[in-house]
This record gives sequence, C-alpha cells and structure tokens, in this order.
Amino acid sequence: MNGGGPEWDETHITKYFFPTEQIPRVSCTDPLADELISQEKPVVLTDTKLCDSALKWDLDYLAENMGNERYMVFVSKNNKFKYYDEAKMRVYKANFVPPTKRVDMTFQEFVKKLREWKPGDERAYLQQGLNNTFGHAIVLDFLQFNWQWLNVQQKKHKWGPLTSNLLLVGMEGNITPVHYDEQQNFFCQLVGYKRCILFAPEHYERLYPHPVYHPHDRQAQVDFDAPNFEKFPGLDKLEGWETVIGPGEVLYIPMYWWHHIESLRDLSHTVSVNFWYKGGPTESITYPLKPRQKLAVMRNVEKMLLEALKDPAEVGPLLRSLVLGRYTGDESLGE
Amino acid sequence: MNGGGPEWDETHITKYFFPTEQIPRVSCTDPLADELISQEKPVVLTDTKLCDSALKWDLDYLAENMGNERYMVFVSKNNKFKYYDEAKMRVYKANFVPPTKRVDMTFQEFVKKLREWKPGDERAYLQQGLNNTFGHAIVLDFLQFNWQWLNVQQKKHKWGPLTSNLLLVGMEGNITPVHYDEQQNFFCQLVGYKRCILFAPEHYERLYPHPVYHPHDRQAQVDFDAPNFEKFPGLDKLEGWETVIGPGEVLYIPMYWWHHIESLRDLSHTVSVNFWYKGGPTESITYPLKPRQKLAVMRNVEKMLLEALKDPAEVGPLLRSLVLGRYTGDESLGE
Ligand SMILES: [Zn+2]
Ligand SMILES: [Zn+2]
Repeated sequence: MNGGGPEWDETHITKYFFPTEQIPRVSCTDPLADELISQEKPVVLTDTKLCDSALKWDLDYLAENMGNERYMVFVSKNNKFKYYDEAKMRVYKANFVPPTKRVDMTFQEFVKKLREWKPGDERAYLQQGLNNTFGHAIVLDFLQFNWQWLNVQQKKHKWGPLTSNLLLVGMEGNITPVHYDEQQNFFCQLVGYKRCILFAPEHYERLYPHPVYHPHDRQAQVDFDAPNFEKFPGLDKLEGWETVIGPGEVLYIPMYWWHHIESLRDLSHTVSVNFWYKGGPTESITYPLKPRQKLAVMRNVEKMLLEALKDPAEVGPLLRSLVLGRYTGDESLGE
Repeated sequence: MNGGGPEWDETHITKYFFPTEQIPRVSCTDPLADELISQEKPVVLTDTKLCDSALKWDLDYLAENMGNERYMVFVSKNNKFKYYDEAKMRVYKANFVPPTKRVDMTFQEFVKKLREWKPGDERAYLQQGLNNTFGHAIVLDFLQFNWQWLNVQQKKHKWGPLTSNLLLVGMEGNITPVHYDEQQNFFCQLVGYKRCILFAPEHYERLYPHPVYHPHDRQAQVDFDAPNFEKFPGLDKLEGWETVIGPGEVLYIPMYWWHHIESLRDLSHTVSVNFWYKGGPTESITYPLKPRQKLAVMRNVEKMLLEALKDPAEVGPLLRSLVLGRYTGDESLGE
C-alpha cells in the first residue's frame, strides 16, 4: 500500500453477517477496467493519477489553504452518519428525528474537534462540495486533477455531465451506512484508508430502502450492526463486494449500486474526493428490465403516489391495499 | 310488489356473513332521490316509468321479437357468473381458466335451455347489448323508454354520454359475483326479482380486487359462499346495503360501488336492462382523495407498472419489493 498513514490489517476490518467477494483491483490501462465500467460493475483503479495533486491534502494543508468559510460538518453521537434530506424533512411531517446534526464550522474548528476527540465524544464528518470559495492553492491543486483521463471516461461510457465534487474529511471509524446514489461516482481516496462494501442494485429486495419521500430516501432501513432478519426477509441472502482503498486509488461506484463506506477504525482520519456524473441518456430499453431500471420504476411509483395523494401518510395505506392479499397470495404468482 | 311473476319472501334470501342495511326506496319525485344520486349513493326509484314499455318482455315476447341473430350467452357449471375480460385473457399468460364459457346462441335456443333446465344441469345467462339487429317491436319498445327522465338525470348530475344498454336474461338463482364498474348505472328490472347487494368504494380494502391486467379485473377475489378471513384480512368488517328490485323498479348503482346481484332462487327467471353512463368530467380535486379516487389511483399504478415492465408476471414481484418490509412495518406508519 502506498500513502503516508499507517497501514491497515485484518484487525481493522469489522466482520458483518454477509459474505463478500473482493472488488477487482486493476491498472486503469488494463482493458478489464473499461469493460467493468462499461458493464456498470465496480472496480478499483490503482494508478489513474486522478488526484495526485491532492495527495498532500492532510489536515494541516487543508487548514492552511481551505479558507475561512464555514463548511458543512455532520456531528453524530455514534459512528454512523446516515444521510438525510433536509428538504424531505419539511415534507415528511411524521416524527422524524435526524440521526446526525449539521453544524457548519470553519476548517480550523473542525480540525480542533478531530484532534481533541476521545472515546465517548460525539464524532464529526466534514462533507463539503468543492467550490470557488476554497483558497487559491486548493483551486490550483484541483486544476491539476487528471481531467484528461476523466473526460475520456465520460465520453467512452456516454455519461452525462459532472455535477459535483464532494470533499469528505472523516474521523477514523466513521461510517456512511449502506445507500445508493442516482449518479455514477469515481471515489478518489487521498489520505487514510476506507473500506467500501458494495451490493448490486438487485439487492433492493434485501436492503429495504426507506420510502422515496422519506428524509432517508435511498438509504437502507437495515442496520449492519443489528440486522433484523425477521423484519427484513431475504436480508440473510445479502452478498457483497468489498475492498479497502488507500491514497491515490479510485473506486468506481456504479449508479444505483448500494455502498457502505467506513474509515478504518483505530487508524487515521480520512480524506476523499468524489466525482459524481449523471447517467447517460436512457439506453434502448430491453425486457425484462434490469434491476436498476426496476428500482427506478419503483421510485416513480412512489413519487406518483405522493403527487396524487399529496400526503405522505396516505401513501403507505394505499400501497398496502394495493398489494397485501392481492399480490401476496399464490394466485398472484400462479393463477 | 308489482309485476307478473310470483312474489318473494325471506326463504328466497341467502344469509351471508356480513350485515346489510336496506337501500332507500323512494319516488323519483322525492328530493331525496336527487340528493342521493348527486352524492353517488345507491337508491331504488320505484316509479320512474323508465322501461314500462318493456315490462312485457317475457320469454315468449322476446323469443318472438328479438330476431334470429345469435346472442351472447354465458354458461356455468354452478350458479356464479364471474365476469372475465377476453382481451385481458390474451395478455395475461398465466394459467387462467375461465369460470364460465361463452356460447353464442339464438334466443329460441336459449329459452329451450331455460325451460328444460333441471338441477345439476349447467346454467345459462344471456347478456347482450341492445343494438339495431333486434326486431322491430323491440326497437319500438326501446324508443318508448322514458328518455326524457334519463336526459334530465344525465344533465343534472353532469354525467357523460350513455355508452350502452345491456339486456340480461337469467335463470332463477344465477349470481353475478361482487365487482365494480367504472360507469354510472341505472339498473332497470323488467321481469322477476333480483337481490342487489352493494358496498361503498372504500370496501376495496376488504374485497381484494384482482390485478388490473387480470381477466377478472374489477371483480373481488373473495367468495361470499366460502369467505377466507385469514387470506383476506378485514373481510370480516364488510358491511353492505341491499334491496330486492322487481318489475318497473330502477336501482342506481353509483360508479365504483361494489355490487353483487342474484336472481332470487327458486323463483322465476329474470329480465333486466341497464343504462351505463360515463362519469362526469373530473370534479375539482380536494384532499384527502375520496375512496373511489384512490381506487382509480391504484388502477393507474397497476397499469403503469404493466406498461413499464411489459410482463404481468413481473408486476407482483416488483410490488412486493416495493411494499413488503418497506410500507408494512411500524416505521412506515410512524417514524
Ligand atoms: Zn453515496
Ligand atoms: Zn356491474
């Protein structure tokens, strides 16, 4: 492994209840890399030099160069940072309690929190989109990214435009629980080590995403630390892909693939940048639909129902009337 | 009771598992009649003179005057005539076995079947749309219907156009099992007695209609003679409205109201004509939606899913993934 931080070993890897295979790790010049990206399958690219100019983005460098703005920091009482959509919190009136608190702070304040942290303290995770308020040195580093390689990928795989770059600075042990995004993602590791566990889109049957209009839209309801196999039938059949990425490595996370990402515990903090691209124009549709297309259909049903009923509290009862006893018996399968 | 056949008494009324109230019976000049129709609530109108010119449509008269065409007759091994959609049978590839057989025959052949019927024989039910192939005398009777009253109703309640008149000639004891129609219906009794049991649209939760693309679309899955309370939760909460209509009486069956209709057993055959009207233009929508509007939303979800997935066999699994464990737990109700 390369990079500046301490190396990791098996003692840093939590054992979960599901089996995993290793995500392939290849050179970006290996034809297999293109093939996997084309097929929307995850792959670790070990030598893209995508963000080599940012490998020096340690806490000191960032503290010195990011500027004096306040950045988006999430604070959690435990090690999980389950994303929630603030706009959907306003629509979804039921008693939703955000699992983390957003506390915007300067980078210096954030670093102080990291350095003074001791077990039992609340944890923090900076998640800030890169923008032009960042200091001059950071912008120069950004311009040195391997844009040429990125543009070739974007063209080759017919992706849409780059929509954003998110800078993630996390404490060791921080976890982003399993969810999917609706965009293609090159996830680029700069400092420290992140364990990434991915699941193919068809595992929507086993991961039980929250309703689309719920603040936790796109997040699984299941908890890897306390899996409830009775409540979530099929969860015991979950099978994943995983890898640990370190400085300079890039993980391709295909659109609609589920991912759980953790900064290895008892190691260093982590710094990452991701590159989100819109998916390409809809390919010619063939039947049966692919799992990720079915997931999109399900999302549309939920959106249409909220649009028709106006009240999120009405969607569940209607869906239950629609399905229970009508699509759950043997008849719906056979007759 | 008026009309030519024998009168009925309680011995002709099967006892089912659900309670019922009596549908109001009023004069068509009673303001309550207008009020109930406006509110889309069932009512029996005792004196519309809607089809007085057809009160003479007994078997002999029809046999003599209907013409020599072959008419639509359904034949059943038991007393139930559960409707199925022949077009949907072609789309729905699963092993659907039609519960009745369509055998087109002349009216004379049909009458012979009726007159020679003995217990154990298959039953027959003529269900033929009125059209201009019918004999001259029938057409003249048709022109004598109380069109003026009908046109006033149609205007007053802002209904769409009259789409069809169905002539129904059934054996005593024939049952049309519980279903709903997507049109307004004036159901006019000519000969014999029919027991009509209606349920408000919101009972879709208890009656479990077949999937929209199923040949039994709009028909309940439940069987009143063998109710399965375990398979169909809530069925035990079913509550209906009922009445027996005889010659000259008209039952208003509102759009989306469930109805079960039986020719009283051990009495005479029955003759009826219905008048189906399209619903009015969508009223200004207010929230929460009315039960019948929710039923329409559910129908649209099912249609959209078949459109998206193309294969009826794929709809059930997707709906189960969409709902089970996601909209069935306490979270979907509360959190
Ligand atoms: Zn993500
Ligand atoms: Zn009907």
